[in-house]
Amino acid sequence: MKRQMHLIPVMQTGPLVGSWRHPEAEISFLDGGWWGSIARTLEAAKFDAIFFADALTFYNDEMTRKGGDIYLLDPVPLAASVAQATTRLGIGITISSSFLEPYGVARALGTLDVLSKGRMAWNVVTSVSDQEAQRFGKPKLLPKDERYDRADEMVESCMQLWDSFAADAYLADRKRGEFIDPDKLKHIEYIGKYFKTQGPLTVPPSAQGRPMIMQAGSSERGRQFAARWAEILFTYQRTEASMKAFRADMDQRMAHLGRAPEDCAILPSIQVIIGETERIAEEKRQYLYSLVDDDVALARTSMATGVDLTKVSPHQKLTDLDVGTGSTGALDVMVNAMAGDNLTVVEAARRYSVNALCPELIGRPEQVADQMQQMFEQWGADGFILSPHVMPSSIEEFARAVVPLLQERGIFREDYEGTTLRDHLKQGSR
Amino acid sequence: MKRQMHLIPVMQTGPLVGSWRHPEAEISFLDGGWWGSIARTLEAAKFDAIFFADALTFYNDEMTRKGGDIYLLDPVPLAASVAQATTRLGIGITISSSFLEPYGVARALGTLDVLSKGRMAWNVVTSVSDQEAQRFGKPKLLPKDERYDRADEMVESCMQLWDSFAADAYLADRKRGEFIDPDKLKHIEYIGKYFKTQGPLTVPPSAQGRPMIMQAGSSERGRQFAARWAEILFTYQRTEASMKAFRADMDQRMAHLGRAPEDCAILPSIQVIIGETERIAEEKRQYLYSLVDDDVALARTSMATGVDLTKVSPHQKLTDLDVGTGSTGALDVMVNAMAGDNLTVVEAARRYSVNALCPELIGRPEQVADQMQQMFEQWGADGFILSPHVMPSSIEEFARAVVPLLQERGIFREDYEGTTLRDHLKQGSR
Repeated sequence: MKRQMHLIPVMQTGPLVGSWRHPEAEISFLDGGWWGSIARTLEAAKFDAIFFADALTFYNDEMTRKGGDIYLLDPVPLAASVAQATTRLGIGITISSSFLEPYGVARALGTLDVLSKGRMAWNVVTSVSDQEAQRFGKPKLLPKDERYDRADEMVESCMQLWDSFAADAYLADRKRGEFIDPDKLKHIEYIGKYFKTQGPLTVPPSAQGRPMIMQAGSSERGRQFAARWAEILFTYQRTEASMKAFRADMDQRMAHLGRAPEDCAILPSIQVIIGETERIAEEKRQYLYSLVDDDVALARTSMATGVDLTKVSPHQKLTDLDVGTGSTGALDVMVNAMAGDNLTVVEAARRYSVNALCPELIGRPEQVADQMQQMFEQWGADGFILSPHVMPSSIEEFARAVVPLLQERGIFREDYEGTTLRDHLKQGSR
Repeated sequence: MKRQMHLIPVMQTGPLVGSWRHPEAEISFLDGGWWGSIARTLEAAKFDAIFFADALTFYNDEMTRKGGDIYLLDPVPLAASVAQATTRLGIGITISSSFLEPYGVARALGTLDVLSKGRMAWNVVTSVSDQEAQRFGKPKLLPKDERYDRADEMVESCMQLWDSFAADAYLADRKRGEFIDPDKLKHIEYIGKYFKTQGPLTVPPSAQGRPMIMQAGSSERGRQFAARWAEILFTYQRTEASMKAFRADMDQRMAHLGRAPEDCAILPSIQVIIGETERIAEEKRQYLYSLVDDDVALARTSMATGVDLTKVSPHQKLTDLDVGTGSTGALDVMVNAMAGDNLTVVEAARRYSVNALCPELIGRPEQVADQMQQMFEQWGADGFILSPHVMPSSIEEFARAVVPLLQERGIFREDYEGTTLRDHLKQGSR
């Protein structure tokens, strides 16, 4: 069978910078029925999964007011709602490893995996702001590498809890009056530096055994974490060379841990803008950028790059920008990426805040399909994380115009072969 | 308008002693579609809510093997699944105050309340076993009264978090580019003995504002907690005198805290067994008792009474039982309640483990309706917590045969007047 790509769109339970102001955008983040409808659209188009990003607080008043980058809802109940509305679509949710106890996380995710009949993935994040820590009664976050140490224990203990309930322990044998065989439950005792817990868990394994693990590690420590646990890895890569280097690095790290390359799908993020003509698509892109408020653009880009751009003149040329010390390198990456485009600081910030420098695939459906095929076949991407901006129309137009092209070319499934997310990820793999 | 009763059945996400072995019982605890179907049956019959009890661990190997009293699933995702399958039915879930941080609880319950459009209730429990504490990395539970001190802080801080997001803060104003008015978010700082947290919460208020609070306090400290917070209170009362005394005590405690009696619905638990004739109903009851395994009955009753009945002869008469010291009084209550029935110890334990001494309403539908009407009109019950045993047939037969009688008599709603759980609880109140 021909190798096939995996497609997962990332959603947020609130507005994305600017795009929520698009005249076609529906603003229905609080409506479970609306999310169910979006999920059914994705399922009809045979997407592997829907994926919910999350942050636990609003960033600041300005971003809150202007709908800069907002997450309103807890993904755990939202995932159950989406599971009830669908039968095949995988569902990835973000849960931070920094604030909860593993027993609660394992029970919630295990329950979701059972109720969805084996369609869950857990995007493990370690959180980024001290404000989030303070919500949970802690003065601040642990240092980044320690957060990953803690995340290692979190996932390790959840794995032990999920494994504590053998698939054949659940008997439900009415005649013999045996419901569960306790001899097939493992009485585990996990004692780590950060967590202590005991098993067995009360939740039987799902149709796919346990939830899959998603991750987006990019730092040295993050990559080590991903190499150990990730089964779906998403990443920002702008060039074939960087994608190949990332893939090679991850394959090597995984090999050291006894894992094969096919144990983890590596999915670069892309942003797709389709038009009837290339020019229409390009104008749509410019229109999207124009919806981003200047203050939001500068604040969000400052946050992401670690350089305070609210203190420089927004209308000076990006190439003239002298940020002095304090740069983390992220700004240099941005300046280099946009060097040829003759942008002012605020124009660059608007663009950055919309796409975070991920590749933009702009054009007619055929052109988008061509670029996806190239990234899939030559760059070594196993598929893509899509960032739809206008909800739900970006998804609908991609499903109608691009998915059939990918299917015709034999590089995307025409139907699901299995029922679980793990099945979907295996389908068409190398 | 005539006063009307409230009806809420209690469910568990696993077998109840014995009844799961009934030939009509469906054993589908792990199926979200099955729970959705049960919820729709309850909604068609205009029940106020469905309510999920919970415990975080299995009690012991014997109870696990024989399906003694098992909770398999986390109620948070299950509630979202049920909400997606219904439009009016309230949904109560159990979350312990002893192991989680308020910000996470408030965010999960707030999200559920938004997704259900205002149909959630939180049954606040403080947990009962050290085993549960050990799952969450603690050596044992706090002493009971301290657990309630902690629960007070948990609910207090969740209330502050839910109130931190004003209803008119959510603007979603596309033209002006204002998504949320940050001036209408409260920046709260909660510093308690047990919890610290900060607001605002990211979740807007639901159609009913915030989730309702359910509780079952019976101890002195538990009643104080209930008087402060409970809006739906369930209780075990066997006689008119004890129900009236409980009602008077709670009304007085609530008055001291500035609350009116109608601020909290008091719902005694009942168990209903319907037959075409009284004799059939009585034989159904005996059959249900016969399904309970002796060891499970003795273990569960020992656990509930604090007296180890596994060490006495199971076939001696209950009235001959000499438990010596160690009795907590709960066994005396049981012995007195069953004194006239000439039961052996194991027979009594079987009965106790099925109904926990709540009133059994046995007979033809008219007889059951008569008894409910009497408890509602003369005992001062505001309605009932029903304990269906055979799932889903106990619910279906009650909905078909008893609900129409209550509706004919004008003491139960013919339709929902509002859309939220809070609306349902107000409908037909004194």
